[in-house]
Amino acid sequence: MNQLTIIKVGGKIVEDPESLKTLLNNFALIAGNKILIHGGGRSATDIGEKLGIETKMIDGRRITDRETLKVITMVYAGLINKNIVAQLQAMRLDAVGLTGADMNLILSSQRPVESIDYGYVGDIKDVNVPVLAELLEQDYIPVLAPITHNGKGQLLNTNADTIAAEVAKALAYTFNVRLVYCFEKRGVLLNENDENSIIKELDRELFERYKQKGIIKSGMIPKLENAFRAIAAGVKEIIITCAEDMNSGKGTFISNK
Amino acid sequence: MNQLTIIKVGGKIVEDPESLKTLLNNFALIAGNKILIHGGGRSATDIGEKLGIETKMIDGRRITDRETLKVITMVYAGLINKNIVAQLQAMRLDAVGLTGADMNLILSSQRPVESIDYGYVGDIKDVNVPVLAELLEQDYIPVLAPITHNGKGQLLNTNADTIAAEVAKALAYTFNVRLVYCFEKRGVLLNENDENSIIKELDRELFERYKQKGIIKSGMIPKLENAFRAIAAGVKEIIITCAEDMNSGKGTFISNK
Repeated sequence: MNQLTIIKVGGKIVEDPESLKTLLNNFALIAGNKILIHGGGRSATDIGEKLGIETKMIDGRRITDRETLKVITMVYAGLINKNIVAQLQAMRLDAVGLTGADMNLILSSQRPVESIDYGYVGDIKDVNVPVLAELLEQDYIPVLAPITHNGKGQLLNTNADTIAAEVAKALAYTFNVRLVYCFEKRGVLLNENDENSIIKELDRELFERYKQKGIIKSGMIPKLENAFRAIAAGVKEIIITCAEDMNSGKGTFISNK
Repeated sequence: MNQLTIIKVGGKIVEDPESLKTLLNNFALIAGNKILIHGGGRSATDIGEKLGIETKMIDGRRITDRETLKVITMVYAGLINKNIVAQLQAMRLDAVGLTGADMNLILSSQRPVESIDYGYVGDIKDVNVPVLAELLEQDYIPVLAPITHNGKGQLLNTNADTIAAEVAKALAYTFNVRLVYCFEKRGVLLNENDENSIIKELDRELFERYKQKGIIKSGMIPKLENAFRAIAAGVKEIIITCAEDMNSGKGTFISNK
């Protein structure tokens, strides 16, 4: 099976021109097929604010009303996605920027209202493996914005970590998939103030223990839940690290023990 | 050669949900391959205003400074493009929303400063025919936002009428191309206040005469210049009409006499 590297990068990295440049330089060095999945929440919050649209977050998830959906569609699928594509093209990497609506790539359903109404937020139902595999075979580099659709004309805001995990899982039957979650830190840390306290390997048991102790908390919990689901579903390697260490083999490796 | 219909629609049509619905219903009825190219200037002006970015127009062309480029990238490539794609997908039409940067589809160069500095505005240098032809062969429906790139990482604002003409010209060697410019009126009118005064057929000679008389003026002039260049370059049929009459054979036909 061919190698496929899926890189997920958070908003902070893609929104700063300097860190974006570092990221794309490292991304260019990856051999074989690759996919880039990006966030962009900070810009969305910033531009939303300027447009007088208040950002509401619950547990790190954005409440997406109709106006907020417009903002994230502009920022994720437009501003951030197309700038990344143009810069990859400048490096002679044949990128194509897509949402889940394009080519019907990722179908989702609007999250049902239980205790919280998240609004236009999508839970992934299906990843279009043949179409993604065909793009990769043709040596395109898909750059995915964290927006999906319900197949009935509605765009839906969808967590980029989850998209990365679901795309990795879906392609694990066709490729040897390596999934790298890039964020600001050099890995999952035992002590959030010590960049050298990286947890080298994390299995479910250790994760549960650290979670109970409060060492692993907030946004890292759903990220790791995604990672454990993906490794259990056949993704070959999952690393949580910073953009600089993307190709260095440093960071926190997710174990399927 | 296979049939290819290229529909160019102006901002007014795609920005109003009702007229967009009519447009997409008519678009769905077209047999054979098709491409949709859209504008979106009104929304860009509107959102730019809310963000405190002033719109400067000269002869109907937007002066595109760095901040304006951000706005149009958000509005054209994000908001408008992805909403059209999602709605086409809901009609089981396999749309893919692209700018000229995606798949390196349309390469342009920044317009040199002569009497006017248009800013980040691109003049088209090359349309990637093999890639567009391949997408059409795979039965995708490209939905093109009026943004191109210079291959060096810079996105450039590019007139949608011109993109339509250049794409039509480039594909005229591979397809029987029919190009339809949809706008608010039912065709090029002899009397702008009389919707029944449609000029049925327009050749260069008649165009020059009407231009001198002031019957054809302002934004219609560059649109028709584009049309005459395209018909001379082998595009089979060019019609200027409204979205409702897209498939009815009504409107102004451009003649290559």
